[in-house]
Amino acid sequence: MASFQGHALPGTFFLLFGLWWTVKCVLKHYSRKLNKNNHLHRSFDKLEFIEGILKVASGIIGILAEQFVSDGPHLYLYTREPWSWVHLMNWQHCTMYLFFGLSGAVDVLTYCPVRLPLGFDRLMLAIAFFVEGFLFYFHVHKRPMLDQLTHSLLLPAIFGGCATTVLEIFLQDNFILELFRASLAILQGTWFWQIGSVLYPPFGRPDWDLEDHDNMMFVIMCYCWHYAIDILIVAIIYILVHCFIQRRRASSGLTEIKLDLQKEKAKEDCASLLKAIYEE
Amino acid sequence: MASFQGHALPGTFFLLFGLWWTVKCVLKHYSRKLNKNNHLHRSFDKLEFIEGILKVASGIIGILAEQFVSDGPHLYLYTREPWSWVHLMNWQHCTMYLFFGLSGAVDVLTYCPVRLPLGFDRLMLAIAFFVEGFLFYFHVHKRPMLDQLTHSLLLPAIFGGCATTVLEIFLQDNFILELFRASLAILQGTWFWQIGSVLYPPFGRPDWDLEDHDNMMFVIMCYCWHYAIDILIVAIIYILVHCFIQRRRASSGLTEIKLDLQKEKAKEDCASLLKAIYEE
Amino acid sequence: MASFQGHALPGTFFLLFGLWWTVKCVLKHYSRKLNKNNHLHRSFDKLEFIEGILKVASGIIGILAEQFVSDGPHLYLYTREPWSWVHLMNWQHCTMYLFFGLSGAVDVLTYCPVRLPLGFDRLMLAIAFFVEGFLFYFHVHKRPMLDQLTHSLLLPAIFGGCATTVLEIFLQDNFILELFRASLAILQGTWFWQIGSVLYPPFGRPDWDLEDHDNMMFVIMCYCWHYAIDILIVAIIYILVHCFIQRRRASSGLTEIKLDLQKEKAKEDCASLLKAIYEE
Amino acid sequence: MASFQGHALPGTFFLLFGLWWTVKCVLKHYSRKLNKNNHLHRSFDKLEFIEGILKVASGIIGILAEQFVSDGPHLYLYTREPWSWVHLMNWQHCTMYLFFGLSGAVDVLTYCPVRLPLGFDRLMLAIAFFVEGFLFYFHVHKRPMLDQLTHSLLLPAIFGGCATTVLEIFLQDNFILELFRASLAILQGTWFWQIGSVLYPPFGRPDWDLEDHDNMMFVIMCYCWHYAIDILIVAIIYILVHCFIQRRRASSGLTEIKLDLQKEKAKEDCASLLKAIYEE
Repeated sequence: MASFQGHALPGTFFLLFGLWWTVKCVLKHYSRKLNKNNHLHRSFDKLEFIEGILKVASGIIGILAEQFVSDGPHLYLYTREPWSWVHLMNWQHCTMYLFFGLSGAVDVLTYCPVRLPLGFDRLMLAIAFFVEGFLFYFHVHKRPMLDQLTHSLLLPAIFGGCATTVLEIFLQDNFILELFRASLAILQGTWFWQIGSVLYPPFGRPDWDLEDHDNMMFVIMCYCWHYAIDILIVAIIYILVHCFIQRRRASSGLTEIKLDLQKEKAKEDCASLLKAIYEE
Repeated sequence: MASFQGHALPGTFFLLFGLWWTVKCVLKHYSRKLNKNNHLHRSFDKLEFIEGILKVASGIIGILAEQFVSDGPHLYLYTREPWSWVHLMNWQHCTMYLFFGLSGAVDVLTYCPVRLPLGFDRLMLAIAFFVEGFLFYFHVHKRPMLDQLTHSLLLPAIFGGCATTVLEIFLQDNFILELFRASLAILQGTWFWQIGSVLYPPFGRPDWDLEDHDNMMFVIMCYCWHYAIDILIVAIIYILVHCFIQRRRASSGLTEIKLDLQKEKAKEDCASLLKAIYEE
Repeated sequence: MASFQGHALPGTFFLLFGLWWTVKCVLKHYSRKLNKNNHLHRSFDKLEFIEGILKVASGIIGILAEQFVSDGPHLYLYTREPWSWVHLMNWQHCTMYLFFGLSGAVDVLTYCPVRLPLGFDRLMLAIAFFVEGFLFYFHVHKRPMLDQLTHSLLLPAIFGGCATTVLEIFLQDNFILELFRASLAILQGTWFWQIGSVLYPPFGRPDWDLEDHDNMMFVIMCYCWHYAIDILIVAIIYILVHCFIQRRRASSGLTEIKLDLQKEKAKEDCASLLKAIYEE
Repeated sequence: MASFQGHALPGTFFLLFGLWWTVKCVLKHYSRKLNKNNHLHRSFDKLEFIEGILKVASGIIGILAEQFVSDGPHLYLYTREPWSWVHLMNWQHCTMYLFFGLSGAVDVLTYCPVRLPLGFDRLMLAIAFFVEGFLFYFHVHKRPMLDQLTHSLLLPAIFGGCATTVLEIFLQDNFILELFRASLAILQGTWFWQIGSVLYPPFGRPDWDLEDHDNMMFVIMCYCWHYAIDILIVAIIYILVHCFIQRRRASSGLTEIKLDLQKEKAKEDCASLLKAIYEE
C-alpha cells in the first residue's frame, strides 16, 4: 500500500515484536541466571508458541490488508485484456508477510509437541529477514531519490537482523545477540513510521522535496538518531524489568536468610511476571 | 546451450540432487538420534560413494551435451581463419560441469578406502558452487535486462549454498546446515526451469517482453515464491521420511518392551530404506 | 568542521585511544600470563571505567566543538524563513561523536558496580564504529574526487575495527584481536591528520589538485604506508612495555629463587605501571 | 614494472611459496597423525623460521627490482620542476612487496627465540594479502578493459587467501585451511604468468585485442581452468609426499611387528624428508 497506513502497519508489527523480544530476552536472562531446572523453560516454550501464533496472525493480517484495500489487487495477479500485471507492489508486500507468517508457523512447530530441532525457528526467521531485504533491495527501482534512500536505509537493519539470527542458530540463548536483534526490530518499526511520514506527510503537512540533497543528508542522520533512541528504549525496558523483579523480591519478604531462598523468590517473580503476561 | 533444454538439464540435476540430499540428511538425522555404533555410518559412506559417482556422471553428461549439441563447439575452442573463439557460452557451461564433476571425484576419494580427510569433499563442493556463481556473475554481460535479472537471481541461491558448504567444513553433520543446503539446491533446480520457460517459452507460448519493468518486478517476487514452495517440498519429504520410519517401526511389532528394542527397530527401518534405495 | 582543525580533533582522539589501547592490551597480556587471581583484573576494571569516562568526555567535547565553532549550527537544526537545514555536516559529525559517547557510557555501566554483562561494551563500540562508517559512506556524496577518496579510505579501517570488535564479543580477552583493533584506531588517527593536511594544507602549503589521477594513486599508496608505520608504532610500544616490565623485575631483586616469586614481581611491576598511569 | 618480467617475478614468488606450502602442510599433516611429542614440531619451527627469512628476502628482491629497473623510479618519489610523481606504479608494487616482507619479519620473530604469540604471523600475512588486494582494486583504474579484468580476477584468489588466513588465526594447524591457502597462492602464481602473457605476449606473438568481449569471456573461463589445474598440482604433490613417506617406511624394514614401531618409522621418514629439504 503506497500510503501512510501501508508503512504504519508493518512498522507497528516490527515495533511490537521488537519491544516484546526485549522484554522476553531480559526475562530469559534473569531466569537463566537464577534457576537451573526446567520449570521456567517450559513457561518460555509456551510463550514462544504463542509468539509463533501471533506471527502467523500478523502475516495473515498483513496479506489480507495488502490484498483487499481499496486500491489492492483483490487476489488478481494479472488482467487478460490488455494483458498486464496487477498491483505488483502489493503482491511484493504480501510475499514479505508470507515469509514472516511461515517463520511463525515454524516457531509453532518447534515449540509444540511435534518439536522440530531447535534452530529451525531461527533459520526460518533469518530467511524471512533475507527475503524482506532482498525484495526491498529491488523494490525501489525507478523511484525518486529520497524514496529510494529511505527504503534502502532499512537494509542495514534488515540484513543486520538476518546476520544476527543466523548467528543465533549456532549460539542459542545468547543474551547479547537476542537483545541486539530486538533493538534492530524496533529500529525497523520506528523507521517504517518515519518513511510513511516522509513520503506521505500526515496531518496535512507540506510534502518533502524528494530530490533535495540536504534532505537526503538529514534522512541519513535521522536514521542514526532513530537507532540512538531505540537503544535508549531497550535500556529503559531493561531497567524496568530489572526493577520489577527486584521490587517483587524485596516486598515479598523482609528477611531473606539464604541465597537459595533469594533465588527462589526471583524465580517466582519471573514466573509471576510471565503469568501477568499470559493473563493479559 | 541457449535453449529451453540447456536450462532444463542443469535444473534437473540440481533438483534431483537437492531432493536426494533432503532424503539423505533426514535419514542421517534419525540414524544419529537412534544409534551410536558404526553400522549405519558405513551404509551412509556407501551412499556418499555412489553419490560421488553420480556427480561425476552428471558432470560428464553435462559436458558432452554442451559440446556435441548441434550448435555446440564439438571440442573446438577457436577457429583459425578468421581467428575467433567458438561458442564460448558452451565452454563456460562445460567449466561449471567440470567443477561439479571434480567435486564428485573428491567425494569418491573421501568415501572409498583411500579416505581423504573429511571436509575436503565439502571444500570442493563449495569451490564448485563458487565457480558456478563466479561464471554466472560475468555470464550475463551485455544481454537483455530480464535475461540478466533471471540469471542474477540464481546468485543468492548459489553463494548461499557456497557459504553453507564452507560452514559444513567446520560444523560437520549439522542437520540444519545440510537441510538448508538441500533446499537451496532445489531452489536452483526449479529456478533453472523457470529461466528456461521465461527466456525460451515452451509449448508455443508468447515471448516475454525482456525490457519490461513490471516483468522484472514479477520475476523477483516469483523467485521468492519458488523458495516458499521449495521449503514446502522439503517439509513434505521430512514428514514422509518421518512417517515411513514410524510406520515400519509400528508394523514390525505390536508390543515393544524396551526402548533399546525400539531403537533397534528404527535402525532397521533406516537400514531397510537405505537397502530399498540401493536396490533401485 | 570543514577545516584542518575539524579533522585534527577526531584524529587526535583516535590516536590517543589507539595508543592507550595498545599499552593496555600488552599490559593485560602480561598480567594474564603471570597471574591467575583477581587482583590485577580489578585494576583493569578501574582502568576500563576511567576509559569509559574519558570516552564520554571526548564525545561531549567533540559535539560542543562541532556545534559552537564560528561556522557551526549552534544547536539550530533548521531555519524557518526560508526553510532550510543548518550545517548538516556538523550535525553528522555530532552524531558520530554521540555514538562514541554512548559507547563510553556503556563502558562505564559495564565496569561500575551495576555490571552490565560483559560484551555489551564491545557491541556498543562496534555499533559506534558502524555508525561512523555508515555516515562516512554517504558523507562524501557530490564532492571532489580526492576529497571522496581520502574519506572513503577510512572505511576499511572503520569497518575492520567494527568487525574486530564484533568478534571480541564472542572471543573476549583475545590479545591478537585487541592489538589489531588498537592498530586500526591508530590508523584512523594518523589518516584523519593526513586528510586534514591534504584538503586544507596547513603552513601555507600549496593546495592539492583534487581531480588529478596521480594524486589519487599516491593517496591510496600513502594509506598503506600509514598502516606500515602504525604497525611499527604498535611494535615499539609492545617492546617498550615488555622492557619496562623486565627491567623492573631485574632491578627489584638480584637473586630470584622461585618462579612463583618471579611471577609475584612481574605482577607488582604491572601494578606499579598501572599505578603510575593512575597518578598521571 | 609494466612488462612480462614485472608479472613473472611476483608470479614465480607466489608459485614457489604455494608449492612449498603444499609440501609443508602435507608433511605437517602426517607428522600430526604419527607423533605426539615435540621432536618434529621443532623441525617445523626451524622451517617456518627459514621460510620467514626467504619471505623477507623475496620482499627485498621485489622492491629492489621495482626500484632499479631501467624505467624505475630509482627511489625518487617525485620530481620538483615541474612537480610530478615518479612511476607511481612501481611504488605501488614496492608497497605490496613491503607488506609481504613485513609478514616474513613477523614469521621470523614468531619462530625465533623471541616467540611472539602464535597467530601474529597469520594476522600479518592476512594484512599483506589485504593490502595486495586493496592496491589491485584501485590499481587498474583507467586502463583497457581486458587489462582491468585480468587484474581484477586476481581479487578472488587474494581475498580468498586473506579470509582463509584470518580463519587460521583462530583455527591453527587446520590441514584443510592450509592446503586451500596453498592452492590459492599457486593460483595467484600461475595467473600472474597468464596476465603477463596476455598483456605483453612473449616470443613475438600477436597482441590481444584488449576491448574484445569474447576475449573477456575466454579470460574469465581460463581463470577457472587455471584453478582446476592448480588443484590437480596440489593433488599430485599430496600423492607424491604420501608415496615418499610410505615407500621409505616399506623399504626400511620388511616385517614390522608393532604399530608403534610403524609409527616410529613414519616419523623418521618425515624427519629424513625434512633433513633432505634442509640440506638442499
